[in-house]
Amino acid sequence: MSEQPAGGDLSRLRQLNAAAVLRELRGDQPLTLTELSKRTRLSRASTEDVARDLLGRGWLTEVAPASGSVGRPARRYRFNAGAGRLLGIDIGGHKALALVTDLDGEVLNQSRIEVDPELGRRERLAVLDRCVRKALAGAGVDARQIWSTGVATTGLVDGTGKVMLSDSLPEWTGVDLGAHVRRLVPGPVRVENDCKLAALAETWRGVARYAKDVVFLLAGLRTGAGLIIDGKLHRGFANWSGEIGALPAAGWQQAPDHLHTWLETTPPDARRGADGFERVFVAARAGDREALAAVQAYVQDLAVGASALVLTLDPQLVVIGGGFSRSADVMVEPLRRELDRWCLRTPEIRVSAFADEGVALGAVRLALDEVESTITTGLRP
Amino acid sequence: MSEQPAGGDLSRLRQLNAAAVLRELRGDQPLTLTELSKRTRLSRASTEDVARDLLGRGWLTEVAPASGSVGRPARRYRFNAGAGRLLGIDIGGHKALALVTDLDGEVLNQSRIEVDPELGRRERLAVLDRCVRKALAGAGVDARQIWSTGVATTGLVDGTGKVMLSDSLPEWTGVDLGAHVRRLVPGPVRVENDCKLAALAETWRGVARYAKDVVFLLAGLRTGAGLIIDGKLHRGFANWSGEIGALPAAGWQQAPDHLHTWLETTPPDARRGADGFERVFVAARAGDREALAAVQAYVQDLAVGASALVLTLDPQLVVIGGGFSRSADVMVEPLRRELDRWCLRTPEIRVSAFADEGVALGAVRLALDEVESTITTGLRP
Repeated sequence: MSEQPAGGDLSRLRQLNAAAVLRELRGDQPLTLTELSKRTRLSRASTEDVARDLLGRGWLTEVAPASGSVGRPARRYRFNAGAGRLLGIDIGGHKALALVTDLDGEVLNQSRIEVDPELGRRERLAVLDRCVRKALAGAGVDARQIWSTGVATTGLVDGTGKVMLSDSLPEWTGVDLGAHVRRLVPGPVRVENDCKLAALAETWRGVARYAKDVVFLLAGLRTGAGLIIDGKLHRGFANWSGEIGALPAAGWQQAPDHLHTWLETTPPDARRGADGFERVFVAARAGDREALAAVQAYVQDLAVGASALVLTLDPQLVVIGGGFSRSADVMVEPLRRELDRWCLRTPEIRVSAFADEGVALGAVRLALDEVESTITTGLRP
Repeated sequence: MSEQPAGGDLSRLRQLNAAAVLRELRGDQPLTLTELSKRTRLSRASTEDVARDLLGRGWLTEVAPASGSVGRPARRYRFNAGAGRLLGIDIGGHKALALVTDLDGEVLNQSRIEVDPELGRRERLAVLDRCVRKALAGAGVDARQIWSTGVATTGLVDGTGKVMLSDSLPEWTGVDLGAHVRRLVPGPVRVENDCKLAALAETWRGVARYAKDVVFLLAGLRTGAGLIIDGKLHRGFANWSGEIGALPAAGWQQAPDHLHTWLETTPPDARRGADGFERVFVAARAGDREALAAVQAYVQDLAVGASALVLTLDPQLVVIGGGFSRSADVMVEPLRRELDRWCLRTPEIRVSAFADEGVALGAVRLALDEVESTITTGLRP
């Protein structure tokens, strides 16, 4: 709409032109200079100029010309996702998980270390370090190749990457996770709450890709929520959104107690071969009446807070994730009935396909956001 | 960033250029052609062209040249808010209120008619008609001068302007308010839920102007909520957001009962000269222990749902509006204490300054949104 500015900062204009070219090349299709010029509305000369510059920096690669062209085939370019690497880390009560990916977020290597929930802060951080080193080594990547890192953690996080409050790991409160990870890898490090990042992963690569307003429920040893509003992760004024579980009336604090009680009063059945919370879901699936009642009571409590979220936001979609989502087959129908009971409109309910890896994938998305904001606003130096 | 397109739809380009000029002139300052050309990045010739066109259509007016200029003073232009009129209507259980404004939303005339809550649908619509005619006549405006109309109503509204569900006025469910008002005035008519529009009014001209994330609580005979998220009214997938009051665990359904009970058991005190619900707040203010206890019990229930909203969204601000907001002096401190009890972070709490006119003002804002979207995307035919 606007015309070419009469004068001004040319190098800035050049950056913006480069960003426009990169945006077009983030799609799957390689493009010719003619196509790029048309899509970016840059002149042919400017487009060539920018492409040469980006090739030199390694952001673009040339791909084989399209076959079947008449005459000399035009050169085609695509974004070079291999120009750098991203790191996504999930550090929680029970595990550390690190993913090394390319700039498209394709996982090159992942490393997981189980953690004892009782571990102290220093030991948990040491596990995190080990997990990152293992993932980097597995991908054959040097830390200096990491352009951007996303870290997911249990608890509420401030803007600098410090854990402000962790209910489930009290000794974790106050840990400066951003500063710690910045000592492991160069480049920007962003830290975010695990439920928020799991929600982000669902809209990026999961079952919520098509939806603009999403309530993500983390159903597991802890119950949590992450909110996607108008296509974006909703953080809130102090980044403390999604914490409805703190309200006793929401029912989430007592929800897992029903499962605990069943587990405590029912000896393991060796034939079923499940352990931990999985036992109650396996028994419910097999038709055990008391297990079914325990799951039903759990879902009833879960549904009160979930209904509060649905009634508040009227989302298009509710996604069930977290450890219990593996047992969604025995949970979804009872949950739908409970939501029907309380909500004016029950949204679609879908189950995450990520098992417990959604959180780390969301951390990769956070790292990618950082890279893309660099692309959108200008180039990495 | 983009250059002049090589070809394409010129009349569309012209529209967009006009929109760019109008956007710049929506501010308070009149601007010269030179200033306009600089701000829009349009050439001087294009700017002159667009300005001539907009003057012809009545969208712009010329204002007196700035004094103290050297040489022949340059002509200055501003947006002509008088080019058209807007209508904002609030139709609820107890009143109809209509505002006639200019294109800046400045109120030229307002008309109010009290309504019996027991009135049937047809009679209520007749009151609405009378109220609109009175407001138009009072402003000396013909219906044909109304460019755009916003209508606020109790109940949930669909995208076409039909009331899908009204709890407080059951016979109102199903009324096609959009179609009804379109028979009164030409131009676009948009209909929206009253709590949502009251929230909108607060971010537009009220106490929430500075805030991007706001929970608006309508505290009155009914309790309701409107949400501003990331600076925009949050509607939800089917426009059914903010309805947490439907959840019994949120406490809002029983909240006013505490006030009712006090009123029923306490004979009016002629010295205090208040009536209706006002009585209990007046008595509480005067230190009546039982009235204070009733207000406290009301606030405790109100705070459960309010805490659910705050914990979910982590807003910067909570605004108290609705009929009871006139008695905020006896409500705000108890409410703050209750929020402190349940929330991880208690946001700032402010009281609406609009008494019961915020809803109609929000309807004007809705009408203005329509005009501004026309300005942004091209010109009104």
